[in-house]
Amino acid sequence: MRIALDASGGEYAPNEIVKGAIKAAHEYDVEIALIGKKSLLHLLAGKHLKKLNLSIIGASQNIDFHEHPMEAIRKKPRSSIVIGINLLKEGKTDAFISAGNTGAVLCAALFGLGKVEGFERPALASIISLNRRSPALLLDAGANADCRPNHLLQFAQLGSIYTKYIFGIESPRIGLLSNGTEETKGNRLIQESHQLIKNSNLNFIGNIEGTDLSRGTADVIVTDGFTGNIVIKTVEGLGDSFIKVKPPSDYSRNLRGRALLADVGLGFLVKSMDYSEYGGACLLGVKGNVIISHGRSRAKAIKNAIGLANRAAEVNLSQLISEAKDEQ
Amino acid sequence: MRIALDASGGEYAPNEIVKGAIKAAHEYDVEIALIGKKSLLHLLAGKHLKKLNLSIIGASQNIDFHEHPMEAIRKKPRSSIVIGINLLKEGKTDAFISAGNTGAVLCAALFGLGKVEGFERPALASIISLNRRSPALLLDAGANADCRPNHLLQFAQLGSIYTKYIFGIESPRIGLLSNGTEETKGNRLIQESHQLIKNSNLNFIGNIEGTDLSRGTADVIVTDGFTGNIVIKTVEGLGDSFIKVKPPSDYSRNLRGRALLADVGLGFLVKSMDYSEYGGACLLGVKGNVIISHGRSRAKAIKNAIGLANRAAEVNLSQLISEAKDEQ
Repeated sequence: MRIALDASGGEYAPNEIVKGAIKAAHEYDVEIALIGKKSLLHLLAGKHLKKLNLSIIGASQNIDFHEHPMEAIRKKPRSSIVIGINLLKEGKTDAFISAGNTGAVLCAALFGLGKVEGFERPALASIISLNRRSPALLLDAGANADCRPNHLLQFAQLGSIYTKYIFGIESPRIGLLSNGTEETKGNRLIQESHQLIKNSNLNFIGNIEGTDLSRGTADVIVTDGFTGNIVIKTVEGLGDSFIKVKPPSDYSRNLRGRALLADVGLGFLVKSMDYSEYGGACLLGVKGNVIISHGRSRAKAIKNAIGLANRAAEVNLSQLISEAKDEQ
Repeated sequence: MRIALDASGGEYAPNEIVKGAIKAAHEYDVEIALIGKKSLLHLLAGKHLKKLNLSIIGASQNIDFHEHPMEAIRKKPRSSIVIGINLLKEGKTDAFISAGNTGAVLCAALFGLGKVEGFERPALASIISLNRRSPALLLDAGANADCRPNHLLQFAQLGSIYTKYIFGIESPRIGLLSNGTEETKGNRLIQESHQLIKNSNLNFIGNIEGTDLSRGTADVIVTDGFTGNIVIKTVEGLGDSFIKVKPPSDYSRNLRGRALLADVGLGFLVKSMDYSEYGGACLLGVKGNVIISHGRSRAKAIKNAIGLANRAAEVNLSQLISEAKDEQ
């Protein structure tokens, strides 16, 4: 599989991005193309190019976090984001990963690749694994702040395909995130979406609540991008707090942070609150496998994003999505 | 202060409710009236009535969790919820607490007490204390699934008064929960609410994100009741998971649950995710001090709810809210 990686995007680019790529090149059977400032990438990765399946693609422009997405992709055709999306469009890569300006990646994917027919709004699908036995996919995690019921039905369909082929769940349980389990609960969007999903051929288990996220009730958690983003970030913030906790001065072992938490059996839970474990969110519903990583991604997150991109490319997730839609 | 307590509402009523009342009667200088099945309450609390400041008020009817709120309060005038709200209306108690059917308490308060002029929608205000240095008030925690910008402005005003008089913060920092800190982020509701709150005389710090909940960025977290409820329950679910964690078999000390977590310095964080620490949410914007407790409340939560009701009654929170509105 060929993976194109935006080496200029993210708070810790290019250093941590390159480190993550090197780790991934050791771990997975993939070809990784680093896109960014050529000279800098040669400095950072040059000595690995021959030994590992790594290459460098120059990008003379860069899109900053604070730039207006649409303007940026129009004005900067030689940015790593636009180049990566073009590679995907031309079939020169099987997946593209960026930890850069999320809005710009969304716009570039939407306009460069186009939407899969039948899906009006691409959605960001984040893995949320607060229950040990049952990791779940939450979507939309932030691509669409305002949604209509039809979009939520489509998110349910996208999530069902993803969890079927990536998690290997034959009939994924679809839950609609709400403020109560009863059918009549929720805001207007959720009440109307409930009826649409209920009348689809999906394995809909009904409304689920915030507490269900830790209970493994559903395989797919359907929500609008506004709520989804707040939930994901609330969990992330809590995870950060847990990692920072210092043991009392009389604590018997000389452990801190993750090691301390693992020592008392909390390793799994804290890991489950750590976005770097999954490396990124798949953008579902566009014609191409696009992974959007967290802006704060370090090497570990990037390595895991490459693992996820590799799985998505192996099954050709975006192709499966168009086929599934055709069958409906 | 006189506190009326619904002894029939909640999963563990009346046993745990009565236990909580007995604990609170020892701890606070309050008169507590237990409302419920007279004979049962005499059995449970009878021997304490003379020693402690406890009394019993009979309620021959009971509103169940699954009953339709509006119908229930109409059909059951002798239920503990309707009796409690009437006591408040008649000035025979300074506050009323219920862990029963939330919708029914909301309806009874709305129609029995009425709204404070200028506040279109009463809001549930939950204390969320994920940051050690800075507890915050989140509202609306679930009373209004669909909101308009004007409602969110009013929630900001309600939260500002609450945190000023209950937390003692002179100029509370108001944050608007969104999917990004920039003014342009958010769904339509949030974008419009942002402008309204920005142009008010409140100490508005702008949009905050899910991660800010753990960072103590704001004293008041303003959100619609749909999003607020999901956030509160996501945190609650995580707290439950943490408490259930078992240490590895080689863990040196024979500790479990809360004791184990406290042992490694996590006591505060896990406590902060536990709704029973605050006991309940104040219903702000109605003419009377109403506290709605969690349906799963046990003695500790009820005791803490009585503490909160006592503070609200001491300052006469609902009166302060009408006065503040008059001044604006």
